[in-house]
Parts: sequence; structure tokens; C-alpha cells
Amino acid sequence: MGTAAEPGDPTPIPTLTPAPEDDDYWYLDGPQGPELPTELPPCLPSLPPSLAHICLAVLSVLVLLLLIPLGRCPLLWSHCGRSRFRLPSPLDFPAPRGSRAAPAALLTVLSSALCLLLSENTSVPTLGSAPGPGARRLLGLLYCPALYYPLAACCTARHPAAHLLGALLAWVHLVLQLWPRAECPQTSQVQQFYSLLATLPLLLGLGFLGLWHPVQLARHFRRHPELGAQDLWSRGSEQYLRGVLYKHKRNSAPHPQSGFLSRVRSCCRRLYHPQPGFQLPLMLVLSAALTGTVTYQVALLLLVAVVPTLRRVREGLTTEVSYLLAGFGLVLSDDRQEVVQLVKRQLWVLEVCYVTALVLSCCLTLLALTHSLGTHRTNLQALYRGAALGPLTPSRRPSLQTVCCWMAFAAYQTAFTCLGLLSQQVILFLGATVLAFLIFPPLPGGQSPLLHGLQTSWPFWLTVALAVALQSVAARWVFLDTRLGYPVLTNRRALTAVTFLLFPANVLVGALVAGCRLLLSGLYSALMLGQAQLSLLPAPATALDPGYHTYLNFLRMEVSQSHPAATAFCALLLQGPRPHTAPQDRPSPGWEEEGVQLLRTKELGALKWGRRAGRGRGRWALAYTLLHNPGLQAFRKARGPQP
Amino acid sequence: MGTAAEPGDPTPIPTLTPAPEDDDYWYLDGPQGPELPTELPPCLPSLPPSLAHICLAVLSVLVLLLLIPLGRCPLLWSHCGRSRFRLPSPLDFPAPRGSRAAPAALLTVLSSALCLLLSENTSVPTLGSAPGPGARRLLGLLYCPALYYPLAACCTARHPAAHLLGALLAWVHLVLQLWPRAECPQTSQVQQFYSLLATLPLLLGLGFLGLWHPVQLARHFRRHPELGAQDLWSRGSEQYLRGVLYKHKRNSAPHPQSGFLSRVRSCCRRLYHPQPGFQLPLMLVLSAALTGTVTYQVALLLLVAVVPTLRRVREGLTTEVSYLLAGFGLVLSDDRQEVVQLVKRQLWVLEVCYVTALVLSCCLTLLALTHSLGTHRTNLQALYRGAALGPLTPSRRPSLQTVCCWMAFAAYQTAFTCLGLLSQQVILFLGATVLAFLIFPPLPGGQSPLLHGLQTSWPFWLTVALAVALQSVAARWVFLDTRLGYPVLTNRRALTAVTFLLFPANVLVGALVAGCRLLLSGLYSALMLGQAQLSLLPAPATALDPGYHTYLNFLRMEVSQSHPAATAFCALLLQGPRPHTAPQDRPSPGWEEEGVQLLRTKELGALKWGRRAGRGRGRWALAYTLLHNPGLQAFRKARGPQP
Repeated sequence: MGTAAEPGDPTPIPTLTPAPEDDDYWYLDGPQGPELPTELPPCLPSLPPSLAHICLAVLSVLVLLLLIPLGRCPLLWSHCGRSRFRLPSPLDFPAPRGSRAAPAALLTVLSSALCLLLSENTSVPTLGSAPGPGARRLLGLLYCPALYYPLAACCTARHPAAHLLGALLAWVHLVLQLWPRAECPQTSQVQQFYSLLATLPLLLGLGFLGLWHPVQLARHFRRHPELGAQDLWSRGSEQYLRGVLYKHKRNSAPHPQSGFLSRVRSCCRRLYHPQPGFQLPLMLVLSAALTGTVTYQVALLLLVAVVPTLRRVREGLTTEVSYLLAGFGLVLSDDRQEVVQLVKRQLWVLEVCYVTALVLSCCLTLLALTHSLGTHRTNLQALYRGAALGPLTPSRRPSLQTVCCWMAFAAYQTAFTCLGLLSQQVILFLGATVLAFLIFPPLPGGQSPLLHGLQTSWPFWLTVALAVALQSVAARWVFLDTRLGYPVLTNRRALTAVTFLLFPANVLVGALVAGCRLLLSGLYSALMLGQAQLSLLPAPATALDPGYHTYLNFLRMEVSQSHPAATAFCALLLQGPRPHTAPQDRPSPGWEEEGVQLLRTKELGALKWGRRAGRGRGRWALAYTLLHNPGLQAFRKARGPQP
Repeated sequence: MGTAAEPGDPTPIPTLTPAPEDDDYWYLDGPQGPELPTELPPCLPSLPPSLAHICLAVLSVLVLLLLIPLGRCPLLWSHCGRSRFRLPSPLDFPAPRGSRAAPAALLTVLSSALCLLLSENTSVPTLGSAPGPGARRLLGLLYCPALYYPLAACCTARHPAAHLLGALLAWVHLVLQLWPRAECPQTSQVQQFYSLLATLPLLLGLGFLGLWHPVQLARHFRRHPELGAQDLWSRGSEQYLRGVLYKHKRNSAPHPQSGFLSRVRSCCRRLYHPQPGFQLPLMLVLSAALTGTVTYQVALLLLVAVVPTLRRVREGLTTEVSYLLAGFGLVLSDDRQEVVQLVKRQLWVLEVCYVTALVLSCCLTLLALTHSLGTHRTNLQALYRGAALGPLTPSRRPSLQTVCCWMAFAAYQTAFTCLGLLSQQVILFLGATVLAFLIFPPLPGGQSPLLHGLQTSWPFWLTVALAVALQSVAARWVFLDTRLGYPVLTNRRALTAVTFLLFPANVLVGALVAGCRLLLSGLYSALMLGQAQLSLLPAPATALDPGYHTYLNFLRMEVSQSHPAATAFCALLLQGPRPHTAPQDRPSPGWEEEGVQLLRTKELGALKWGRRAGRGRGRWALAYTLLHNPGLQAFRKARGPQP
């Protein structure tokens, strides 16, 4: 659409923004005839967008400065005094504590803002002398997360003041988003409608954050927050540890079943349902939220960009279209009104195909998302047990590759979803159109293209069908003897004779099969593009798929940094040494990181603090856990440099 | 080319025949300028092709009738008297006895004849009232194997008279192929050259068969043929059995190595080299011969169809080409001679790219063929040991599917090779052309398209490069602490902050990665299309690839019918009961089939004939063999009907 034609626009991701000259014609509320909407007087909001952005930026910086004193060091770090303040973290990635709704809402807000940035020009802050709209948009890509950084930091600070600031900031964001839309609702009716729909996830996310902070504040004053957080944090890990220590259930793999129906049934059974004692890592939850948001935004854009245009063209058809078609050598009928009706019918078929394909691809994407959560859980549990996954060499330490892949995973998943939805839409639309045009042939007097093609090439299809049928019948009734109750090969001479005589016909069948192979492979790749947990390359070359490679490295990083057994040990260690410390003296942020440090370097020292029986029990539990979690060995064995 | 435009031609396989109006312009011996070759007077051979075909057909039917009395029943079949004659088998598929060169030569002859049939019109027998050239060609596809059936049957009859008849038939075929080419060598020089090259494998194969039969005849009179055949037949199986019984070497799978160089090295090590005690099934040998022949024919056709045309166009360029280019808005230079030189240079680059791509794709196909033979052997040995291969349910009995797939495998492999070579050629040619045009830009005064593209989209590439570099540097120097000798994750807050801030930039990188994924998957599929032993679909959908499915079923059929342990037992059983029978009394054809029957139903009865010690040894060997060859269990367990 519009921005693709702008000079100097380097963005290759699908922007699909409405062209400014098309905006006036868009509508979603039924056909209104081909006449243009009436021109509206330009509406200038009382608060210009640049001023609003500047206010927001100043407020955000202020909030960030106020948050810094709240980010204290953990208690046990000797080299970090209480006076040293740290930049607040935007997301609490490693620790599975607290509610996951707030970060998910925040990432929804961020991704919606990015989508709006790519599809609209109004929400980009005017950066004075930026070189061209492409570069300005790219700068906006870096500006957006910085703008929402303080809002994210408020969620992780876990302090009453932070919750107050967060609520304030969320409401200010919400008001500044709603203000121009409330003041100038009549700039252009259709554009307004799309803009409101596209902003919906953003507004909902901001509204949720505006309510979440007060709720957290109220909870803070009702009971002590650290206790609750710690409970939440260690509950999942302790359940996992209890499962490992008390009963070690073997994962009895179900017998592989053939047949399409049983496959579908097993697929349905593998849709995600929560499992007690297992919590998905936060990054996967965020990735799922991002997938949902991006699916909504891309589907909305695809719908709004095409359907109104098609309807407008259909309503605006006059008898002149018959001259146009005659210019291309297509004479559908002598009656011009009939030609108009025919073309209208085909356009209607196209529209139905397009919307069907869009609905189908959205359903497929969401179904795949639900299924993928179950796959992630299975893979993570396999890695927890120390199993190898994929073709990578098993290493349970973080490396340069795993860290980079972990940082990029959620973003890659977002891009994969976006492009995967586009490719699904294209393929399903093409398929539906071909199917529809075979059923409703465009030429009413003529015959279906399918029949015409068959009439032309009947000897080929006859040969192929005869060869396949002859071989099947001969194999069933001549070459296989089932009188003994089980099939036995007989008539070997006839078998070789038929094989020899049908060799050329089988080469023709083979050419068809090769076409099927290539087609299936292309379809699979295009339909599964959005799923990082599936490699698009077959077995010997699996590791060459960059998306799958990123996914595997991301999982390895997750397992190396937040193994539930390690987390549970940290909780035990932290509960052990100071049973009489008052809860309010404990430092809140970062104490699980300290626990991991303890586990890695001060394990024996920490155990000394326990009583004799406790130490013995602890050692036994350690040995038992290590036995069933070989992934933890990496933390223990290496004391010196590794070769 | 020519036949694609014929009305009513339904053949979608690549015929690529030279159009009749193009034939006169083809040449391979250097550029000769744009002038047309001189018109030659029509040359009528003294023996018309239809008469030659009729003579050949009559002779073939006669030979077949003479062969029937030679195909006697095996000795032990009670229901088949000596007076009952059977149709001779064209190929000895199940038993790995005798030389494999004769059937391979025969299939080479057949496939070359089919290629000539598809590319020429002269060798099609004129079938009076056939409906159109497409249907006539399809009928020719069924006629061709019938014509060569008697020649094939002579190779398997294993009788002096059959060898005499075979030699006669091969020489007659050879003479009738050479006659018209010797009589009318001047019909059209270029066409003649291509025709000779395309007929070369056919002539070589027929010549080989014409010499092979006399050699076999001489061998027959020098020593007794059955003994030799039996030796040959049981040697490989006995070696396999000896290896199983005496020393059971575990296949120590090599440690999976990462790194490109080690992969290449292991690939080179896996090229096929003969292994003592293992013989590839005849069908795989035939399939390899067919692959070689088809590669030669398709490469020759691709070379002859394009390169002379390109050279002719290049030599015939005049200054008028500048007007033509100006019509498309391309003004390369003001000097017309310079324009001609520029266009000539680009055409020369195109030709070099085309020939390079052709040579590369032929080398790749032949390399893949060599590699695939090793893969087949590994897969077969795994199946012999009872291992599961692929996603199919393990069943060791022939079924409808396995029989059909076995019959079709060699033909499918031929079609896959043909289409795989075409797709490789297209992809390598496009790749080489893009590379060449980046190095030699078509516009001499202008800049390279690569540089131009970079200038337009530099902000995007800069963002991507900066994001990737920043993350790598930060991961190496900030987030990973290697002071302990092994990497430990530190600065988690900064890690989350960088992840959050670089999220939008990573989405851009993710879009690039998604493009790479799709491109890699398409390239892999197109390059590996010719190899049936590789599935083009990744792990969860492997079984949906029809080519791979055929391959797996073919292997299962091979294992169920010619397991070397079963073959060796048959040899032992046949040697056991009648040690004093004179060799000349033993029936020759079909006696290994009878052995398999013995093994299946009369095992215990056959063992009774042996002495006491021999029986004990036989039972021990049976038990030991069954232990190490679970695939053989299927022959023993089932006595009644199976559920």
C-alpha cells in the first residue's frame, strides 16, 4: 500500500499502511456506494502530538530517576553496599515469581505501539533532522522501548512507591493515547475506526496496568509482600523437587499410532493444559502474548487493507467493465449488464475466499500457539532430566551463543509469527481461490477449467491411473498369497515381468510424485514458518535452520539458569541459615540471584549452618537430585578451569 | 521447446525436444555465424523405420517363443510337472546371483530408448490410427519395454541356447540402430551429432550384451554353470552369516561432531566403497545405473538445447540491438559498437554461468549417487539387525503397500533424478548469474546493483548490524564472566534491560532470519529432490513425503524377501539333504525360491534329513541367528492366522 512507494524507505517488514489517498474510501460498515465521503475540515487537537510526547518523555525520565533509589543491592553481596543504587530492571526474566500478567500486558502495549508506529505516521515523535521517513521510523523503533522502560521498571521494583508511580504513569499514557482520538473523532470515519481497533490492545494493556498497580498496593498493605513473592517463587520448584524425590515416574511414551484420525486425536490431546508443579518460563509466556498481539494486528491490517477496497470496486462497477475486458480479449457475454453481474459475482467469490483464508490462518496460528506451549513444556522437562534435544552438543553452561539467542528469542518469535501469518494467508487464499474458481467457473457458457484440462491431457492421466490401479490389483490378488493367514509373496516371475513392463509408466507416476514432494515441502515450510520450535529442514540438516537453532539455544539458557531443582535448593538455603531473621529485614529484589550464587560457590559453607540431621538429609537430597537431574552436574563438578 | 506447443500433448514430463524448425540451427562445434546451414536433400534409408520395427518385433516374439521351453519348473515343486512351461522372467530380482552387469546394461538400453522416444519422432513405431502425437508417445512407452523383454529374458534363462539367442538379438538390435545412422549421416549435421551422442549409451549397452552372451556361453562349456551360480549366490549370504555367528561387532556410532570441516570430512568418508560380505540388492544397482543414464541424457539435452542458441545469438548481434534496448528504456552507451560489445560480454557471462551450473549439478548428482549407495547399505544392515527405520510401523511381512512401492522404486528414482537435475540446474544457474552480475555489473558507467541496494536501505542494515554486534559484544564482555575458568552469567539486570531495549531491533533481525529459513528450506528441497532416501519434510511429518515413503517400503520388501541369513539357510538346506546327487541332475532356475519355501514350511522336515550332530549344530546356529536377526522371527512364529 502507501509507504512501499515512498522514496528512501528501507523497511522490508510488511508495513501495509493505508495510502493517504485511499484513507477516505475505507469503511467496514457495509457497502455505501461508490460516491466519495464528504471532505472534513482539518481537526487540530488542543495538545499537539509532539508536546504530548515531550511531556511523556520528561515524566518517564522523572519516574526512572525516582525508581533508582528503590533498586537496592541484595543483602549477602559483600562488594555492594546499601548505598550503591542500580538501574531498575524492566522485566524479571530469570525468576519465576510474581504475576506474569503485568509483563505480558506491558509487552502487548510495546508491540502494539510498534505496530502503530509502522502503520501510522502520527505517533512517531518528530525528530527534527532525521534523514527520511525510513530512518525516522527506525529511530522510533529504538525510542519506543525507551519510552516504556520506566513503566516496565515500576512492575519489578516491588515497592509501594513504585506501584504508585506505575499507576500514575499508566494512566498518563492512557490519557495521552485517548486524548487525540476523543478530540478529533471525525478526521476520517474509516481511518478512525481502524485506528481505534489497532489501538485497542494498547489501551487495554495500559488500562490493565493502571488497575494492576493499585491492586498490588492494596495487597502490599494487607500482608507482607516478600513472603508472598517468596512463596510464589519457590512453590513450583518445590513441587518439582518433591516429584523428583518422592516418586520418579517414567515418562511412558505412547505407542506410535498410524492413521490420520488417531494423529488428529493425539494432536488435540497435546493442546496446552496447565500441569501442576510446572511453570513455563516468563520469556515463553511473553512470547505467547506477543504472538497473540501480532496475530491480531496483522490480521486487522490484512482485513482493512483489502476488503473495503474490494467492496468499493464491486459497488462501483459499471457497464464500462465489458469494454475493459474486451480489450483483454475476454468477451463474457453480449449483454453488458450480465457482464457486470458476472464480474460482481467473481469479486464476491474473491472476497469470501479472502476472508475465509484470513479466518483460517488466524485460527491455525492460535492453534499452533496453544500446541507449541505444550511442546515447550515437554522439551523443557526433557532438558531438566538431562536428555539431549536436537543436534546441538549437550552443554549446560551459558555460552556466547546461548546468551545471544536468549536475548533475541521473543523478538524472533514475533517476526516469525508475523511472516508466518502472511505466508499462510497467501497460500490459503490461493488455494481457496483455485477451489472456488473450479466450482464456479468464470465463463458461464464455457466449461470448468478442470474439465478442460482433463480433456486435453486425458492420455497421460489414463496411463498413470491404469498403471497405479493395475499394480495395486495385481499386488493384492496375484502377488500376495494370504491363504496361510498372513501375506506371502508368490508368482515372482510375474512380479518381475510386470515391474519391467510398467517401468516407463511408473516413470510418469514418479514425475507426479516428485511434483507432490516439492509442493508438500514448500507448503509445509510456508505454513510452519511461524513456529520456531519446528525445524523447517529435515533430519541431517536440522541444525542449519537459524530459527530452530535460536530456539534450542534459548531452551539451553533457560535450563542452565532456572533449573527448578536449583531454584528449590536456593529457597532451602535461604530459609536455612537465618530462621529467626525478621521478614522485614530481608532484602527483596535480587535475592534469588544471590541464592544461585550461594549454590554455586558457598554450597558447603551454607550447609554447615544447618544441624547435623539437616545436613545429612540435605546431602542425601542433593545426591538423589543430582542423580535424577544430570543437568545440575555442571554447577558442581567444575572448580578450576576447564579444558 | 518444440513439443510443448503441440495441441493435445498431455505429457508433463520434461521432453525438451528440439523444435523441427530449430533443428537446422543446432551445432556444437564452435560458432559459425548466424547464416543458416545449407538445405540438404531428403535422405531416405533403404530400410524404412517401420519395416525395421516390424522385423525386430517378429524376431523378438520368435525368440520369446523359443525361450519358453527353457524355463522349466524347479525340481521340488510337486504341483508343477516338467512338462509345464513358464514365461521367462526378464530380471532376476530377488536372488543376488550372477553378474549384475547384464541387467544394468539392459536397463541402460531401455532408459536410453525411452529418452530417444521422448526427444525424437523417428524411433516411434507408426501406430496407424493413434489419437495425436501425445497418445502415440504414451503407447510407445508401453511398447518399448515389450520390445526389449526377450532380450532381457535371454539373460536370465541361463541356458546355452538362450545365450545364443540373446547374442543374436543384441546384434540385430545394434545393427538396426546403426543402419539408418550410417546410411543418412547428412540429414542435418547438428541434429546428427546430438542424435549420435544421445544414442551412445544405447549402442554401448547393446554392444556389451552382444559380447556378454558369447562370454557366458564359453564359460558354460568350460565349467558347470549351476555350481558357479550357486557359489555366487550363497557366498555373500554365508559371509554375512559367518560374521553374525563368529563375531558380533557393535556398530559404534561415531561421536556427532559439529563444525563444517568435520562434516565435509565425514561426508567424504561415507562415499561408497565395497564392503566384503555385503552385496547391494539388484534393484539398487539397477537404480544407480538408471540414475547415471538419465543424468547423461538430461545433461546432454540441457547443453544442446541452450548453448548453441546462445552462441548463435551472440554471433548474430548487430548494432540494431541498441535500438531494441532503447525501446525498453535501457541506454547502455551512445556508441552503438560499444553497446554490441557490452551485450556480447553479458551473453558470454550467461553462457559461462549456464555451463558451470550444468557441470556443477551433474557432479552433485553423481556425488549424491555415490553417497546414497553407502546410505542404502547402512539402512539395509540396520534393517537386517532388526532396527526400526523411519516412522513406519515395523512389520517384516510383505504387504500391498510394500509390493507396490517395490515395483515402482527404480522408476520413481529415475523420475526424481531427472527432475532433481533440472531443479539443481535452475537454482545453480540463477545463483551463478546473480553472482556474476554483481561482479560484472551490466551498466559500465553505473554502479553495481549491490552497492545501489545498500545505498537505498542503509538505515535498515545499519540497525540490524548494530543490534547483532551490540548483543554479541555485550554477551561476551558484560554478561559472561569467565574469571572462574568457565562462563558464568552476571549482570542480569543489564541483560534484561538490553533485551527489552533491543526488542524492536531484534524483530527486524528476526524478519531477516525468517527469510533465511524459508530460502534455506526451498533450496534444500530443490537440491535434494533427486534423492529418495532423504525425506524433504522435517521430523514430525517425515512419513508424508511420498518419495521417502516409497523408499522405506522398498527397503522393507527387500529385507523381508532377501535377508542374507534366510538366503544362507536356504543354501545350507539345499546342500544338506542330497549330498550325493550329481550336480547335473539339479534343476537350475528358481531353486532358491524353492529354498525359501522350504525354510518357511518344511523347516523341521528338512532338518530331519541331516545327521544328529548336524541337526544339533543347525539348531544352535538357528537360535543364535534368530537372536541377532529379529527380522527373521516373522518367518517362524506365525503358523496360524494372525489377528
